[in-house]
Amino acid sequence: MTNPAYVAVDWGTSSFRLWLIGRDGSVLAERRSGEGMTSAAKTGFSAVLASHLAAVEAPENLPVIVCGMAGARQGWIEAGYVDVPAPLAAILTGAVSVPGESRDIRILPGLAQRQAATPDVMRGEETQLLGALGSTSAGAQAVCMPGTHSKWVHVSDGKVSGFSTFMTGELFDAVSKHTILAHAVAGAEAQPADAAAFEAAVSAAFARPALASNLLFTARSGQLLHGISAAAAQARLSGTLIGLEIAGALQDATDSGIILVASGRLQALYEQAFKILSLAFTAIDADAAVRRGLSAAAEAIWPN
Amino acid sequence: MTNPAYVAVDWGTSSFRLWLIGRDGSVLAERRSGEGMTSAAKTGFSAVLASHLAAVEAPENLPVIVCGMAGARQGWIEAGYVDVPAPLAAILTGAVSVPGESRDIRILPGLAQRQAATPDVMRGEETQLLGALGSTSAGAQAVCMPGTHSKWVHVSDGKVSGFSTFMTGELFDAVSKHTILAHAVAGAEAQPADAAAFEAAVSAAFARPALASNLLFTARSGQLLHGISAAAAQARLSGTLIGLEIAGALQDATDSGIILVASGRLQALYEQAFKILSLAFTAIDADAAVRRGLSAAAEAIWPN
Repeated sequence: MTNPAYVAVDWGTSSFRLWLIGRDGSVLAERRSGEGMTSAAKTGFSAVLASHLAAVEAPENLPVIVCGMAGARQGWIEAGYVDVPAPLAAILTGAVSVPGESRDIRILPGLAQRQAATPDVMRGEETQLLGALGSTSAGAQAVCMPGTHSKWVHVSDGKVSGFSTFMTGELFDAVSKHTILAHAVAGAEAQPADAAAFEAAVSAAFARPALASNLLFTARSGQLLHGISAAAAQARLSGTLIGLEIAGALQDATDSGIILVASGRLQALYEQAFKILSLAFTAIDADAAVRRGLSAAAEAIWPN
Repeated sequence: MTNPAYVAVDWGTSSFRLWLIGRDGSVLAERRSGEGMTSAAKTGFSAVLASHLAAVEAPENLPVIVCGMAGARQGWIEAGYVDVPAPLAAILTGAVSVPGESRDIRILPGLAQRQAATPDVMRGEETQLLGALGSTSAGAQAVCMPGTHSKWVHVSDGKVSGFSTFMTGELFDAVSKHTILAHAVAGAEAQPADAAAFEAAVSAAFARPALASNLLFTARSGQLLHGISAAAAQARLSGTLIGLEIAGALQDATDSGIILVASGRLQALYEQAFKILSLAFTAIDADAAVRRGLSAAAEAIWPN
């Protein structure tokens, strides 16, 4: 087995992921837990990290590269933001050291869009983006990173020109749980997913995004008047919100193609949406992308 | 004092309102409570009504006309729906009698839109609409009834051609309380309302409705990057959702004018939104409208 070179950590709001990376770039060990920023802010970031480092038997002098919400103001150490427009490589030089630690721990900055009509921020996705595209990508791309807060980033020849956050995942949760539509979707998990209802909802919202909050309500009215299933109602909610997101993200787009950076269920849903809308895309695995981005940062900061 | 002629009740999901109406049409007494359908379904509709009738000393043989969710399947007695397109006056003949009561109690039906691409239902607003327009209105109108579930109804020469529900009020609550934006709006109630932020958000969402879920997020990013106040963040949420609603409601509109049926704070907000969008409108008080609609039904069912 190759010797470990550094530790890479993706520390989000509600999740913690750690990889022990070897000198040849291979993954020697991995840890995943729910000790995200929210939980670690109470129990202590240093202690959470130390327990996972011990679990993978990381040598004492091994450096650690971190991205995500650990660098937020309410996180471990504030790592600030790189203002866009900016080259992707700018995040490599913006890492902040965590003081008072025996080992070298650096947290990568986020990206901020201050001057636009729609101010925006990201933290963690910039590293995923770096891993997905590399620091010297050519051409113009619209990169879609779906999630609780979906990010759409416009990149041109390795430079981020702007980005937008869509609250798709969080709206889906809030609407499913805390509105009258909760009755309509109750029990959906026990039914097979309704692909046709999802695709119809994506198309309807993409074609007429102004009707979004009316289309959401048809999950209930469709159940009252036409007896649609809970799975169909749930598919209408997710399809409407994803169709709205794609319509908004692409309305001014001049990019040549879409790059989808996602994993698992979200990747499948967005692929289905792009296909029904006849939008060409390339898919990149999100987990692999964030690890590649952290590795690019580690290799820039601690060259062999 | 004139003798009482009938009792009018607007029985919604979470509210109960009762008026004792005199032979000359005047309001002799009024009751308001939180004993809406949700609460009355547990304690009993008959008992709730009886207690309020006793409080206003309604004579034993006085008839009662009811509109709203008391007529829903999960209400007192299901009063069904009148299918649109239909003349407004059709609800007058669709009232259902409550069996087993010593006095004559009738519940008015709702409206259903079964065949459209967007199925829809309303219950209670049809009576408000009847009161606002009368049963023989001329010309084409778009009637806006804002609320938890805003209703936009297209009426042409007294006939309802179609309608749409927008979940504006409920989305505002869910987003304000159950997403990351809860932090951004915390404390807004203690600050003066930010009219400029509201108007900018209405205009932005009306112009670019596809960006709705991105514009919502700027309540947070605006606070992180530009330190906007909680009141400004809250104004962005309500302005974005109201601008989205108006864009959706009017995108196919061929009506000659907007009639706003609302009261209090919602009336003020929608008037402000229509003004900033340069949309001509006429305002009608919602409380007076529902009472007039109930009176029209009572006078049709129990002519003097």
